[in-house]
Amino acid sequence: MAKKNAFYAQSGGVTAVINASACGLIETARKHKDIIGKVYAGRNGIIGALTEDLIDTSKDTAKAIAALRHTPSGAFGSCRFKMKSLEENKLQYERLIEVFKAHNIGYFFYNGGGDSADTCLKVSQLSEKMGYPIQAIHVPKTVDNDLPITDNCPGFGSVAKYIAVSTLEATFDVASMCKTSTKVFVLEVMGRHAGWIAAAGGLASTKDAEQPIVILFPEVTFNKEKFLARVDELVKKFGYCTVVVSEGVMSADGKFLADQGLKDAFGHAQLGGVAPVVANIVREGLGLKYHWGVADYLQRAARHIASKSDVDQAYAMGKAAVEFALKGHNSVMPTIDRVSNAPYKWKVGMAQLSKVANVEKMMPKNFITKDGFGITEKCREYLAPLIKGEDYPPYKDGLPQYVRLKNVAVPKKLGEFKL
Amino acid sequence: MAKKNAFYAQSGGVTAVINASACGLIETARKHKDIIGKVYAGRNGIIGALTEDLIDTSKDTAKAIAALRHTPSGAFGSCRFKMKSLEENKLQYERLIEVFKAHNIGYFFYNGGGDSADTCLKVSQLSEKMGYPIQAIHVPKTVDNDLPITDNCPGFGSVAKYIAVSTLEATFDVASMCKTSTKVFVLEVMGRHAGWIAAAGGLASTKDAEQPIVILFPEVTFNKEKFLARVDELVKKFGYCTVVVSEGVMSADGKFLADQGLKDAFGHAQLGGVAPVVANIVREGLGLKYHWGVADYLQRAARHIASKSDVDQAYAMGKAAVEFALKGHNSVMPTIDRVSNAPYKWKVGMAQLSKVANVEKMMPKNFITKDGFGITEKCREYLAPLIKGEDYPPYKDGLPQYVRLKNVAVPKKLGEFKL
Repeated sequence: MAKKNAFYAQSGGVTAVINASACGLIETARKHKDIIGKVYAGRNGIIGALTEDLIDTSKDTAKAIAALRHTPSGAFGSCRFKMKSLEENKLQYERLIEVFKAHNIGYFFYNGGGDSADTCLKVSQLSEKMGYPIQAIHVPKTVDNDLPITDNCPGFGSVAKYIAVSTLEATFDVASMCKTSTKVFVLEVMGRHAGWIAAAGGLASTKDAEQPIVILFPEVTFNKEKFLARVDELVKKFGYCTVVVSEGVMSADGKFLADQGLKDAFGHAQLGGVAPVVANIVREGLGLKYHWGVADYLQRAARHIASKSDVDQAYAMGKAAVEFALKGHNSVMPTIDRVSNAPYKWKVGMAQLSKVANVEKMMPKNFITKDGFGITEKCREYLAPLIKGEDYPPYKDGLPQYVRLKNVAVPKKLGEFKL
Repeated sequence: MAKKNAFYAQSGGVTAVINASACGLIETARKHKDIIGKVYAGRNGIIGALTEDLIDTSKDTAKAIAALRHTPSGAFGSCRFKMKSLEENKLQYERLIEVFKAHNIGYFFYNGGGDSADTCLKVSQLSEKMGYPIQAIHVPKTVDNDLPITDNCPGFGSVAKYIAVSTLEATFDVASMCKTSTKVFVLEVMGRHAGWIAAAGGLASTKDAEQPIVILFPEVTFNKEKFLARVDELVKKFGYCTVVVSEGVMSADGKFLADQGLKDAFGHAQLGGVAPVVANIVREGLGLKYHWGVADYLQRAARHIASKSDVDQAYAMGKAAVEFALKGHNSVMPTIDRVSNAPYKWKVGMAQLSKVANVEKMMPKNFITKDGFGITEKCREYLAPLIKGEDYPPYKDGLPQYVRLKNVAVPKKLGEFKL
């Protein structure tokens, strides 16, 4: 096997553990220097490949690379840049191959969600046609948990843990205050199309310790009357309740509930979240005092409360990607295959990219309770192992010691390319 | 010394560590059963005393009481209920004394902020006049960090740590995304009158690792042009920035910046936060893509990332309150006295309640940089030790094991009392 370099890029919204995948990948590649020369990372994702802005990861020490395991965000920069279809912009794909050729790159590792799986597949197909074979391997990552075949997606478990813990803590808080003050706490979480993250809020309530939690899923059309009745019921029983609302919740008119056409005093349009909208509905409908929060980036960046399952799996996916490459695989993605729930066991599997690309895994219908406001036992069984275990970063002076890499540029060999 | 029971109540907004004070207090009292009989807690704070709704804490095991140390919120319920002045409602104070008398209570421990310090002082004064002497001791607690004499207030350090860690993590996130997507992240934090909590966001930037952070303090009148210029400057230098905004930031017209007279599509008034307002200002003024979050209750309930300094101090305050009582003190509050910064050392001190009540400690002017958007070295020196150390709760199946006490009611001896 002729020695080739590898290219690695991070794609789309970052997570608390995407760097753990980078860590697994780079550490494993470094153990096989006879086959994989250098690992070049794309600065700001695939844009780095198109503009030939490559990072030489070999310039960073073993210690710095190891610290990626406990550092959230994308250490090399990510991007929201969808490669067009081959028909629409063949030039982009050809440019990729040209850059790979110029830097003797034989391995393409792309770390992302559905879109990047599709890009990965196309690069593999085109490289064959162009007579410069590239082994293209997709490394799964998405807080949305919507990739098919794999049991779950690295990045999701840590968001789920953050939301479960935060929901539990906020519910304890509102329980203390409800006698004379706040009775309803509304927490807005990510999830435009699927309610995976919102579902995690349901984990805060257990058989041993029931908590009054109402979940608003994007899968369930918002019904104001039923929602208010449920909140009212819980507040009457417990004295308080917590509402976990997915940003993607829709009204019956097919619009996002968050889209209320808000205008400021001067008539300017204002962009608000869905949490204040739901809070106002509670106030107007039941006259209850409320508080609301919006977790936004905090939820997906919260490496301080990452799930150990998630960190282990993210690392394993990066490691497996290199191992697959070494075995000669192409156009594949490592997957997490669940072996058993109790005790939780999983192993690394392999999926063909042709079966991953353009397939979105939605939350099964039997994961949502009949009333539409909670999670079923089946959902709980699925989610519970994913938030298991803690994996704390090291601290200094009260702050987590997250690493910033040197990110030294590889000298360019080609001319400019207009994006 | 005749054996007397003790009364303990939690007041105002709860924190991640107010139960650690309860733990220190109850555990210490249990070691002196020859002098302090039982510790009765007020259900929902002082309301529990007025309505004779007392909780017998002796019904909970040593293990359950020990778990209070790592449980956020107020285990006995808190309340927002300000006792009126003696002149306005002498009946309330007399009722308190009557309840204390009926249950042989000789110690009044009140765990709260400025208002409860004032109530505590009044109870002590009135009890003397009424010939039923009560030793009234205030246990400091407030995320607002605005009590005088004590160097800092239990509850604040953990919020500060949560905001510092979250700001760091969100800044790493936006750094990864800025090339093609979000360039500004806006985080709304608590603090209606003082910028202590917002200041903690500044800790995310250190000498070793500078982060582009803009802080909006309630102490500094919001100036749109200067703010946009600062954001623009940082985005040009770093590619991104994080704005930490205090909920209490005011415009030049003396109104809260959050109060934008928002109306929905039907013309109904909507209550929004200040984060979306600031985000919209960034969008309109600079055309930059943004995200925003509102930490709300998550910040003060986040026991999972509590500061060890804070937990230790909260416990020590509860313990000292009992020790002061045993020594015969009355109308006092234990304080945290800073001995040195490096290494951080502190000891328990004592303040007279007459000097605590109705005095609000504001953030010193020299804690804010001249441009109004950052913290000074002096501020950093003050804040840094308060977020030091981690004190993780125990976990089971991925969730913190927070305790719910039995909260068994003490049989009533008196008639009803109308609040």
